[in-house]
Amino acid sequence: MAKVIGGYSLPNMPWQDKPSDCTDPVWRYSENPILTRKDCKGSNSVFNSAVIPYKDGYIGVFRCDTMELWPTLHVGTSKDGIHWNIKDEKIDFIPFEGGKVPNYGYDPRITEIDGRYYIVFCTNFENFGDTIGMAYTDDFESFHMMEYPTLYYNRNGVLFPRKIGDNYALLTRPGAPGHCLLGNICYSESPDLKYWGKHRALIRVTQGWQRVKVGGGPTPIETDEGWLLLYHGVTEMCNGLIYAVGGAILDRDDPSKVLYRTRDKIMTPEALYERVGDVGNVVFPCATLCDKDTGRIAMYYGAADTCVGVAFTTVDELVSYIKEHSM
Amino acid sequence: MAKVIGGYSLPNMPWQDKPSDCTDPVWRYSENPILTRKDCKGSNSVFNSAVIPYKDGYIGVFRCDTMELWPTLHVGTSKDGIHWNIKDEKIDFIPFEGGKVPNYGYDPRITEIDGRYYIVFCTNFENFGDTIGMAYTDDFESFHMMEYPTLYYNRNGVLFPRKIGDNYALLTRPGAPGHCLLGNICYSESPDLKYWGKHRALIRVTQGWQRVKVGGGPTPIETDEGWLLLYHGVTEMCNGLIYAVGGAILDRDDPSKVLYRTRDKIMTPEALYERVGDVGNVVFPCATLCDKDTGRIAMYYGAADTCVGVAFTTVDELVSYIKEHSM
Amino acid sequence: MAKVIGGYSLPNMPWQDKPSDCTDPVWRYSENPILTRKDCKGSNSVFNSAVIPYKDGYIGVFRCDTMELWPTLHVGTSKDGIHWNIKDEKIDFIPFEGGKVPNYGYDPRITEIDGRYYIVFCTNFENFGDTIGMAYTDDFESFHMMEYPTLYYNRNGVLFPRKIGDNYALLTRPGAPGHCLLGNICYSESPDLKYWGKHRALIRVTQGWQRVKVGGGPTPIETDEGWLLLYHGVTEMCNGLIYAVGGAILDRDDPSKVLYRTRDKIMTPEALYERVGDVGNVVFPCATLCDKDTGRIAMYYGAADTCVGVAFTTVDELVSYIKEHSM
Amino acid sequence: MAKVIGGYSLPNMPWQDKPSDCTDPVWRYSENPILTRKDCKGSNSVFNSAVIPYKDGYIGVFRCDTMELWPTLHVGTSKDGIHWNIKDEKIDFIPFEGGKVPNYGYDPRITEIDGRYYIVFCTNFENFGDTIGMAYTDDFESFHMMEYPTLYYNRNGVLFPRKIGDNYALLTRPGAPGHCLLGNICYSESPDLKYWGKHRALIRVTQGWQRVKVGGGPTPIETDEGWLLLYHGVTEMCNGLIYAVGGAILDRDDPSKVLYRTRDKIMTPEALYERVGDVGNVVFPCATLCDKDTGRIAMYYGAADTCVGVAFTTVDELVSYIKEHSM
Amino acid sequence: MAKVIGGYSLPNMPWQDKPSDCTDPVWRYSENPILTRKDCKGSNSVFNSAVIPYKDGYIGVFRCDTMELWPTLHVGTSKDGIHWNIKDEKIDFIPFEGGKVPNYGYDPRITEIDGRYYIVFCTNFENFGDTIGMAYTDDFESFHMMEYPTLYYNRNGVLFPRKIGDNYALLTRPGAPGHCLLGNICYSESPDLKYWGKHRALIRVTQGWQRVKVGGGPTPIETDEGWLLLYHGVTEMCNGLIYAVGGAILDRDDPSKVLYRTRDKIMTPEALYERVGDVGNVVFPCATLCDKDTGRIAMYYGAADTCVGVAFTTVDELVSYIKEHSM
Amino acid sequence: MAKVIGGYSLPNMPWQDKPSDCTDPVWRYSENPILTRKDCKGSNSVFNSAVIPYKDGYIGVFRCDTMELWPTLHVGTSKDGIHWNIKDEKIDFIPFEGGKVPNYGYDPRITEIDGRYYIVFCTNFENFGDTIGMAYTDDFESFHMMEYPTLYYNRNGVLFPRKIGDNYALLTRPGAPGHCLLGNICYSESPDLKYWGKHRALIRVTQGWQRVKVGGGPTPIETDEGWLLLYHGVTEMCNGLIYAVGGAILDRDDPSKVLYRTRDKIMTPEALYERVGDVGNVVFPCATLCDKDTGRIAMYYGAADTCVGVAFTTVDELVSYIKEHSM
Repeated sequence: MAKVIGGYSLPNMPWQDKPSDCTDPVWRYSENPILTRKDCKGSNSVFNSAVIPYKDGYIGVFRCDTMELWPTLHVGTSKDGIHWNIKDEKIDFIPFEGGKVPNYGYDPRITEIDGRYYIVFCTNFENFGDTIGMAYTDDFESFHMMEYPTLYYNRNGVLFPRKIGDNYALLTRPGAPGHCLLGNICYSESPDLKYWGKHRALIRVTQGWQRVKVGGGPTPIETDEGWLLLYHGVTEMCNGLIYAVGGAILDRDDPSKVLYRTRDKIMTPEALYERVGDVGNVVFPCATLCDKDTGRIAMYYGAADTCVGVAFTTVDELVSYIKEHSM
Repeated sequence: MAKVIGGYSLPNMPWQDKPSDCTDPVWRYSENPILTRKDCKGSNSVFNSAVIPYKDGYIGVFRCDTMELWPTLHVGTSKDGIHWNIKDEKIDFIPFEGGKVPNYGYDPRITEIDGRYYIVFCTNFENFGDTIGMAYTDDFESFHMMEYPTLYYNRNGVLFPRKIGDNYALLTRPGAPGHCLLGNICYSESPDLKYWGKHRALIRVTQGWQRVKVGGGPTPIETDEGWLLLYHGVTEMCNGLIYAVGGAILDRDDPSKVLYRTRDKIMTPEALYERVGDVGNVVFPCATLCDKDTGRIAMYYGAADTCVGVAFTTVDELVSYIKEHSM
Repeated sequence: MAKVIGGYSLPNMPWQDKPSDCTDPVWRYSENPILTRKDCKGSNSVFNSAVIPYKDGYIGVFRCDTMELWPTLHVGTSKDGIHWNIKDEKIDFIPFEGGKVPNYGYDPRITEIDGRYYIVFCTNFENFGDTIGMAYTDDFESFHMMEYPTLYYNRNGVLFPRKIGDNYALLTRPGAPGHCLLGNICYSESPDLKYWGKHRALIRVTQGWQRVKVGGGPTPIETDEGWLLLYHGVTEMCNGLIYAVGGAILDRDDPSKVLYRTRDKIMTPEALYERVGDVGNVVFPCATLCDKDTGRIAMYYGAADTCVGVAFTTVDELVSYIKEHSM
Repeated sequence: MAKVIGGYSLPNMPWQDKPSDCTDPVWRYSENPILTRKDCKGSNSVFNSAVIPYKDGYIGVFRCDTMELWPTLHVGTSKDGIHWNIKDEKIDFIPFEGGKVPNYGYDPRITEIDGRYYIVFCTNFENFGDTIGMAYTDDFESFHMMEYPTLYYNRNGVLFPRKIGDNYALLTRPGAPGHCLLGNICYSESPDLKYWGKHRALIRVTQGWQRVKVGGGPTPIETDEGWLLLYHGVTEMCNGLIYAVGGAILDRDDPSKVLYRTRDKIMTPEALYERVGDVGNVVFPCATLCDKDTGRIAMYYGAADTCVGVAFTTVDELVSYIKEHSM
Repeated sequence: MAKVIGGYSLPNMPWQDKPSDCTDPVWRYSENPILTRKDCKGSNSVFNSAVIPYKDGYIGVFRCDTMELWPTLHVGTSKDGIHWNIKDEKIDFIPFEGGKVPNYGYDPRITEIDGRYYIVFCTNFENFGDTIGMAYTDDFESFHMMEYPTLYYNRNGVLFPRKIGDNYALLTRPGAPGHCLLGNICYSESPDLKYWGKHRALIRVTQGWQRVKVGGGPTPIETDEGWLLLYHGVTEMCNGLIYAVGGAILDRDDPSKVLYRTRDKIMTPEALYERVGDVGNVVFPCATLCDKDTGRIAMYYGAADTCVGVAFTTVDELVSYIKEHSM
Repeated sequence: MAKVIGGYSLPNMPWQDKPSDCTDPVWRYSENPILTRKDCKGSNSVFNSAVIPYKDGYIGVFRCDTMELWPTLHVGTSKDGIHWNIKDEKIDFIPFEGGKVPNYGYDPRITEIDGRYYIVFCTNFENFGDTIGMAYTDDFESFHMMEYPTLYYNRNGVLFPRKIGDNYALLTRPGAPGHCLLGNICYSESPDLKYWGKHRALIRVTQGWQRVKVGGGPTPIETDEGWLLLYHGVTEMCNGLIYAVGGAILDRDDPSKVLYRTRDKIMTPEALYERVGDVGNVVFPCATLCDKDTGRIAMYYGAADTCVGVAFTTVDELVSYIKEHSM
């Protein structure tokens, strides 16, 4: 049995038992999608969003695209992790010294380190292109931008929830402008969250469902088997891309070492709300809730770039699957 | 309250009140789609079609693609604007002197000027490429082709329902061959519907939902606030294009001046018949019925290049929305 | 009345009468799809598969893509042609002398000649690209690879069920790497199934629904009117490709001569399971069951590269339609 | 012997006799190139320029690209047609009413009609794209912009030197943005040089050297055999485009009718200054001087988008070649 | 010392000794190019041509593109292999039974087997695309087309000068339409030059100068070390393709086995006539003369798709270089 | 008069006075090119190389592409800066801890800081793509790789010759795979040459000659007017890219601030060896020698990706030009 290290006790987190006829390692919440554009006033869509335990409930940072189709980030709160109140006003980030107010933000992840919350998302590097934005908040009221960890043409930043040795650790996916058809996951370190280096190649595209792009997903979960990382993998078919979910286990002491990594995907678009939408055939996980006591996992994912779904699994189920279906 | 200038009294036009939970400026007819391929014998699809009041009911020119997938135009009639009889035979246009019989036609608009009906559509410029076709009819039996208003690589011609000063006025969207990924709306004038000039830039692509193409939609509605123009805007996502609907208000006396123009879209594909079809994620308006007394509008639009839907709104609702969400 | 030559008496083959309101030449089985990924353990999808009468029931070779999204071929058996048992283990082909074990296989067709079964499919030409793979089996247990009939960049091989004169006859579709946007059907002959020549152009892309690619479908059915060939035709729309079904009648004595060929398509994606899936808007026939006594045909087709459907028609219905809608 | 209609007596125009070993219908001036960037202060290059007899010598409008690589038009004068003084200052066009000052201009042609000089060139349609610019001058000091004859995505406008019936006549080449790989020549008419119509297809791309683009060249020369038109034709090779020169003879009374048109090119890049430069392999004629008495022609052409060359021929030589090598 | 097997004694073949400062394995003829468009009446260019000893001199088949830029093949004769008389009239091939007259031909190779001459070239597969054309002649007066050895999208056919076991052997390069950016060399066999099979992968693209395409060159030379094969390799740079020359040694008894193959290129475009022309940066060998007694080789190559050059080397020099610079 | 800060006294550096008829701000060395493939044994080409004063002469790191067309770096030495001895053996870099031996290197720059020499070049980020490589040497014998300053898809790293405040400063040009058609110059800082941050946008593409890419060139020269930076700018023409040279002046204390930047290019390909080669139309500067006493500059640049040229100018000439032609 894989044991969760650190993490949260979440006895009341969202949960449904695995259906008896399910042979996949994850199963969808029966009331999916949990969030649609109707939950976010004046929005075109809500998807690719992150949540985290906070006080006696949950809090999240949600990607709500405007009717102009401009991505903005909004705070939302929930008692049960299923029903959410999303604020009408987008987050107004406070720029760092010498920096500019980001004019858009999307695909957020949230990581808590030592009681401070870090939001890692995609934003605008002074109109040169997309880059990794990073901000911290202590209260989900004020969000303070930090220096960009990377140059532009980079997305899918994922911050580890503790230091590795003396350094903070970050995953990113260098890319190219537009809907680029390439992307591998890299690992970088920083002594101070300001200057970054020790860049390493981590997970590269291979073949099949993950031959075009791979990118980090939710904040990794530390277990005694290693860091449990979910990631998205993308392939291109005759009529477009398919975004699916894979997983990896990274060395606990040196996460730039991949111990296992899925050859077979863990989850693929199947439900109509995943197949059909602004970008059909997309499941894109950005966050998990994980109960350290039972290993139960609720994975929050964007569906078809249109709405938010939840799927369930456990740490054990994932670790076993990843090891057995590793390449 | 915006007042309709000219136009028709249509007390029996199709109508449904706005649902109480609707927060968008338009709402769909509950029995959509109103026309599918079954309504047009031997057709692959029926979409992007135009209607107009005629005698004691309505008449229309419908795009019915054959099973060869060749676009043809058919006349249809209706008592109530919802149930239509579409003729089996396509329209046989009578060529202009020196011109050829058009071998295809699509995306028609109908405009009445001084009791004569003009059909403006896309057709073939002597096998060089698509261009604006224009024909007139007095009886919807004989359709007389007129000289092409523009050279080729042009689509989405929209004729104003009255002269502006001494000239007729036309919107077009110059483009490029194929499913081009560019297109802005231009304004041109003609003293005689034969020679055209005074070409002006009108509405250009910007960002978000309308960053790839914009093209004129139904015949503009004259109001005391200006010409009310609906247009389609197109963006490109990872898995293809999305066609949505925006609006603008043009100066009454000089429609080459844009007074307002939507930053936010008015309507976007949401219903399954708009999301899924030969070309998914398309709403494409080609005509409105507007009751000059109440300002009620029934907008006819092609859905997913497969069927025809109707959506309702009012002149007031549109004018307010366009002004409040203008860029 | 077109008469079937050779072929099988299949009094118990799958069948449903034509619905009274159906005006198309084929009609779908009411319980479609008959096979989904749940029928093929650990698979992402099952589609584009071939079946044939065998012993007192039916046998088939099924394309089951793994969760790595790697195409593999599996044997399946059925009593009624509707409910199938698909083997968990993929077919392990025995390489020809000097050849390699094919590392993937897809889009199979099955042809019986003189009591021996030939599987023609797409496979890997020594990592240079896709080519036509050919194998024979006498028992559906051992499958023996034969020399590749063609060089690489070729797909959709279809073997005729008897010799034409002294030679075997094969259709192929030369192409290019990837999801190529071109493809015509060629005809080749061989005295020994090892060396091939007398290559002839057969069916080329034209316009409309079949302007991008055409490729052979199920094994041709011999009738006194000629060889009845179903083929797929592909067009490209704004948001991707559409795969539809057409038909041709080839000269019985010299199948390199096309007697008739559809201008209008026979079947086009309409059902939700054909519109939505890993590759939406695809109907792709790979096999038919045909009762020589009644002319009833059950056509097996892949739907949206995700599942398998069945549609019904008759030899008469097809022959009449092809002749009347020929170009 | 073809006889020139109208035109100029130019006994002192540039001329060299045909070399005895030349088997082509045109021959290069032995001192080519006649103009390089050194002749145009602060310029990157000078090419694609037009000249015309004026007073007791010659005058021209020259394309001189700045060191920013921005195309500008400059007036130049010459006594002998070979040695030119080009003004340092670019032409400042006076905008038409409601129009804007063009921020660039390139590839000019000059046509004299009834003593007034018209400059037809490529310019900017309100930042939507390239279009045909037209200006008149009576003194080559003040240049007055006229309304754009066409919408945008159009180049290579060529005005006929007299009215055809009651109308002015213009050739244009509708295209697409950027270095487009398509273009056919169209014919349009106007009663007043303001409103244009009666658009006709004239010369289309075929195969070989003119399979990608064709565009009108110098102002047509009227002869008793018809209008003698030189045009450029473009093909694409493995390593880029080749611009060559062809010719056509149009009906004198109805120039929308093509009497002859070259299957074989008249001139192709051969000299090093035509092969090598900012855009290698380009010969691009924009003007001719033609002596009506002898039929001698000096053709001015841009070479490699870098410099200006002159080539010689006669009306007879061209007319014979075009008729004999017509398709 | 590598010994030539079979072949011709050519004491008077073209030859120049290696310059003392040359460190490359081949050296250019000092009077290159030996053929330009002036040598071929009415042609745009002459290049990529094949020669062979014949009677008391040499004969060749030359690619002469017309001024329409249409590739045609012409016979030429020479006493010394340097100065050639090329016939004005193109070769009129006599079609095979059921075949069509080829409407173009390019890039010929000549192979003599048992006193009969075979011309292998690129031609038109019934308007579907380029394919390998094969013809025989006994007198270089009548050329008899044979069945196409391959389906379409294939070029660069090279026939071995003797049977391998019981079969004829042929190299081809399957490709794709247009100036395709891919191509590997394959090996096929035939018992009768009519039906072909036993297709094998031979030489694939790797990296550097041969990462985009490789294709067979002159007819292989049999030596006691194996078959000496020259081939072209292509890479793509910022500003286009570069065609260079490499070499391989194939097993004498089974030429589908590669014994050695160059990692480093043998010859690369350097001379101005190779760098500049219709397609710059091309050296493309189609034939060699080889004196069996001395091993001297004169390689005939197309330069810049514009003219013909000759380069010298020896069998020893090549064999040594290939072995030492093999990958 | 601009005064050089720091730098070297180089009374014997290469120099030629400005020709009297030269109106450009730089002028070419009359014996160009100074290095060709003959100077580098077994190489395809030598270009894009860096030099620096060393001991009593000059030393350099040269890009010599192998005959496999694989870029390698070689040390070369010279007494006079014109005639160079390039070592046959490529530099074998010693990897950093946890890093790999770089398998290629190209486009080097050399910067001396506090007596240590840093080589900044393009290399391979663990097979994910090109990145900035950095190495130090104290003796030009041993070269020690340092951690990669950036993630992959980055080129044209340029290190400042002193710390800015407490940090080292580096220019880079993030990009995309292949011959990418985009690239802007960014500025980054590091306290230790290991971790990098404070990324800032510096110089972006605009229009004309620098509309596609811009990238840093030689190590900046410190003057009392600011940092004098030469950079390359790239545009795309019909037949490919043109690489030219521009300049900028950056704030001495905060080089992330641009004081001036050229609207007009400083140098453009003109000489035949710059126009014609493996990649024609390229001038690409990688180094300067600058005499601090006179301000004389010798700029070393790659020409046509084939050879090395030198051009002369002075600090004054450049500073004046940049200020006068700034945008």
